[in-house]
Amino acid sequence: MKNAYERLTEHFQKVGDLDHVYSISSWDEATMMPEGGGTARGQAMATLGVVIHEMQCSEKIGEWLDACSNLDLDDWQAANIREIKREYDSVTCLPSDLVHAASLASSRSEQAWRKCRANNDWQTMQPLLEEVVNLARQSAVVRSEKTGLSLYDSLLETYEPGMRSGKIDLLFSGLKDFLPDLIEQVVEKQSRTPLVPMGNNFAIDKQRDLGIKVMGILGFDFDHGRLDVSHHPFCGGVQQDVRITTRYTTENFVESLMAVVHETGHAMYEQGRPKGWDGQPVGVARSSGVHESQSLLMEMQAGRSPEFLKFLAPVIRENFGVSDDEAGWSDDNLHRLYTRVERGLIRVDADEVSYPLHVILRYEIEKELIEGNVQVADIPELWNSKMAEYLQRDTRGDYKNGCLQDVHWNAGLFGYFPTYTLGAMMAAQIFAAARRAMPGVLDDIGRGAFGNLLDWLRENVHSKGSYHSVSDLLVSATGEDLNEAFFVNHLKQRYLA
Amino acid sequence: MKNAYERLTEHFQKVGDLDHVYSISSWDEATMMPEGGGTARGQAMATLGVVIHEMQCSEKIGEWLDACSNLDLDDWQAANIREIKREYDSVTCLPSDLVHAASLASSRSEQAWRKCRANNDWQTMQPLLEEVVNLARQSAVVRSEKTGLSLYDSLLETYEPGMRSGKIDLLFSGLKDFLPDLIEQVVEKQSRTPLVPMGNNFAIDKQRDLGIKVMGILGFDFDHGRLDVSHHPFCGGVQQDVRITTRYTTENFVESLMAVVHETGHAMYEQGRPKGWDGQPVGVARSSGVHESQSLLMEMQAGRSPEFLKFLAPVIRENFGVSDDEAGWSDDNLHRLYTRVERGLIRVDADEVSYPLHVILRYEIEKELIEGNVQVADIPELWNSKMAEYLQRDTRGDYKNGCLQDVHWNAGLFGYFPTYTLGAMMAAQIFAAARRAMPGVLDDIGRGAFGNLLDWLRENVHSKGSYHSVSDLLVSATGEDLNEAFFVNHLKQRYLA
Repeated sequence: MKNAYERLTEHFQKVGDLDHVYSISSWDEATMMPEGGGTARGQAMATLGVVIHEMQCSEKIGEWLDACSNLDLDDWQAANIREIKREYDSVTCLPSDLVHAASLASSRSEQAWRKCRANNDWQTMQPLLEEVVNLARQSAVVRSEKTGLSLYDSLLETYEPGMRSGKIDLLFSGLKDFLPDLIEQVVEKQSRTPLVPMGNNFAIDKQRDLGIKVMGILGFDFDHGRLDVSHHPFCGGVQQDVRITTRYTTENFVESLMAVVHETGHAMYEQGRPKGWDGQPVGVARSSGVHESQSLLMEMQAGRSPEFLKFLAPVIRENFGVSDDEAGWSDDNLHRLYTRVERGLIRVDADEVSYPLHVILRYEIEKELIEGNVQVADIPELWNSKMAEYLQRDTRGDYKNGCLQDVHWNAGLFGYFPTYTLGAMMAAQIFAAARRAMPGVLDDIGRGAFGNLLDWLRENVHSKGSYHSVSDLLVSATGEDLNEAFFVNHLKQRYLA
Repeated sequence: MKNAYERLTEHFQKVGDLDHVYSISSWDEATMMPEGGGTARGQAMATLGVVIHEMQCSEKIGEWLDACSNLDLDDWQAANIREIKREYDSVTCLPSDLVHAASLASSRSEQAWRKCRANNDWQTMQPLLEEVVNLARQSAVVRSEKTGLSLYDSLLETYEPGMRSGKIDLLFSGLKDFLPDLIEQVVEKQSRTPLVPMGNNFAIDKQRDLGIKVMGILGFDFDHGRLDVSHHPFCGGVQQDVRITTRYTTENFVESLMAVVHETGHAMYEQGRPKGWDGQPVGVARSSGVHESQSLLMEMQAGRSPEFLKFLAPVIRENFGVSDDEAGWSDDNLHRLYTRVERGLIRVDADEVSYPLHVILRYEIEKELIEGNVQVADIPELWNSKMAEYLQRDTRGDYKNGCLQDVHWNAGLFGYFPTYTLGAMMAAQIFAAARRAMPGVLDDIGRGAFGNLLDWLRENVHSKGSYHSVSDLLVSATGEDLNEAFFVNHLKQRYLA
């Protein structure tokens, strides 16, 4: 007869199996599905989502968890129980009518957002977003009562367990003081060496070849994953079959290639998660921030390092069949292209120096929204004034490139934005630790040899799954808890040295 | 409060939703999945399969069915109830340990088959196949007791409801008398005009372009489906998003293109099924034979008609950028290529004249196997003697190209083979009815205009779903029940005229 722990793991294996099919269908929807299949697919996935949710909320889980307290479990099993309990509390604490109402409101708001953004129409958006915020606040109230956390922290906890807004305020305040001046200096410095244009007709099949080549160099396992095309790049699929995407335009290969590098970072985290824990909460990626750290480590720390860009330049030229004396194709110009800093309006287009300011702006607004200190109607004015202060850009009346540019809030994702910049900080800190452990690692990268770096990440981050808390993971991998100094130093060295 | 019929339809909508996700995952497995994802995918789909099966077997269905007898239902609703009951009886009649044992035995036998076929190894195959046959017989005994049908007919019923082996014996006996002589004459006639070779390096992207073009000509709706590549061509996906596949070799475009035409016939049946019956048994395709009739109507009746081949020849030449005075590319030679008759060893490579003999051979063996009149050990000798008699080919010792060539029996699919030839007969009968109804339809086809034909098929076959029995569907569409004369006449006219 199976004991309670065995029953729990069997149950979560099944949940994982259904999640697997859900993930692949979701990937298919974004990459393969013809438009006419959308309605039926939405319906099918909603039904499967309900089946999965019911299994995650099953009362039997609570009973098995109670019965596990008498069992003699090893450390990983105990960590699995801890994570099962955390997830179980998180999914069961909200009343189902609230979950349903929030899901409907988000769905309405997301659908309207596509049109409202295109039409620069804040008036139509506002009441729909108010409903989403209202329901998110109600969820926060319930979660807050259950966890004892503040309203905002109770939502943050669902993306970045253990992180608190008080800590984020401290981490971000250093950046807020530092970045505007840094950007000023870098923009001035870079203006002395303008970019040389490099043509604007890059065949998509050659771009794809280049992406595949670079994925191979980074260490992506093609026996357990693939590269495709979608409207927005993402990393999906399952651990044994990771599906990443990018998008192509014939005018430009630069962003598409770095999207591949970014998503490959996410993908290798997934491919490196502990084996044999299928569906078990202890086996999954630790947090949104840690996930982003693995993509940004590849994209920003390693991928835009002078060493790797110098290695990459001839690979790119060979791929497109051009030589380095053609205008724009020199090593130096490619390096400038991949390290350009600009005060832009759009977060997803931002470089690594200005990106945190886009995030801080959103974090500050969403925190006050959830805490009830500001209202949805206040968003445009807050956005405009912060944009002017942090990035010296005027977004008044330009909702499309201002507060309507991201779908996150419409989707009800409050507490998610800060994890982008937490991830950037973690990436700098983890990469610094890897360099201390392996002094030759940048030379390796300069030869296109990522094996040592990937082995180190596998051992210190990927294979840990959710065994540690985020803090413990960072301490174990880098010797200390999250510290913004590594990120600050990284930016100084790369952009001012 | 919902009535029993509403609850039933709601339940089957959910079953359909989960089937949708299962279908897409299955398509992905065959077309997109990297090999390393296979184990996890198998596990995931098995789990989803169990969830679906449990929903199909739910006792609530029986209760709702009983409660429906008091309701005032319209004709389609009543037909839906009839089909729900038929399926429910079919899935619930077998004890679950027998289903499980049969599934395991088939899985073992299918896996071994890949190696045994490659190694021409009947000795290893025999005991594994014996287990599959033994369990299929046990299932047949249970089904036979439940339905009152003979052992073999009780299995046939699961693919071709209403069809009986007595009827098949009659239909096939005409073919068995007629075909060997016909083949003799056709082979002799065709030997007078040998094929001119046409090169052997056809770019795969051009073959794909041609396939897409021809799908469009036939009437495939690309807003609700797509074309991809798999090891064996198939039609999968869901009604709103039909996924067909073909395979390419650079040496030859002929088979790949006709596989596209064949699968497009299946796909257009799916795309034309009645709308608004998602997941409801009355809305699905009528039977395996009727499904095959729609693929063969496109591939054989319309697709290899002289009128269409004459239209297609310049389309093919333009696609590959050759002119009709190059060797092998004349209209006449392309026509000969697509209507060649040969006494081959392999069913899937067979032309429409010899194909039924491959099917009859299998049907005769599998019927006696299930009825217990012959044993698995007898298969090779039976195969060899029937092959010699029907197709004058010697397969002694050549298991690979003899009785090991198909996986169907290993997979436990007894009762399926005859539906290929039933489909061929239905295709001829249905196409003849379409020609009577629209005397200009071959001229239309000769201009690449399939709209009238497709409209007629939509109205008379596709949109009927499973509303009629197979017999009633044929009577309603063609004026009579299945009759082999149309197929016989078709072959005579095409190959001897």
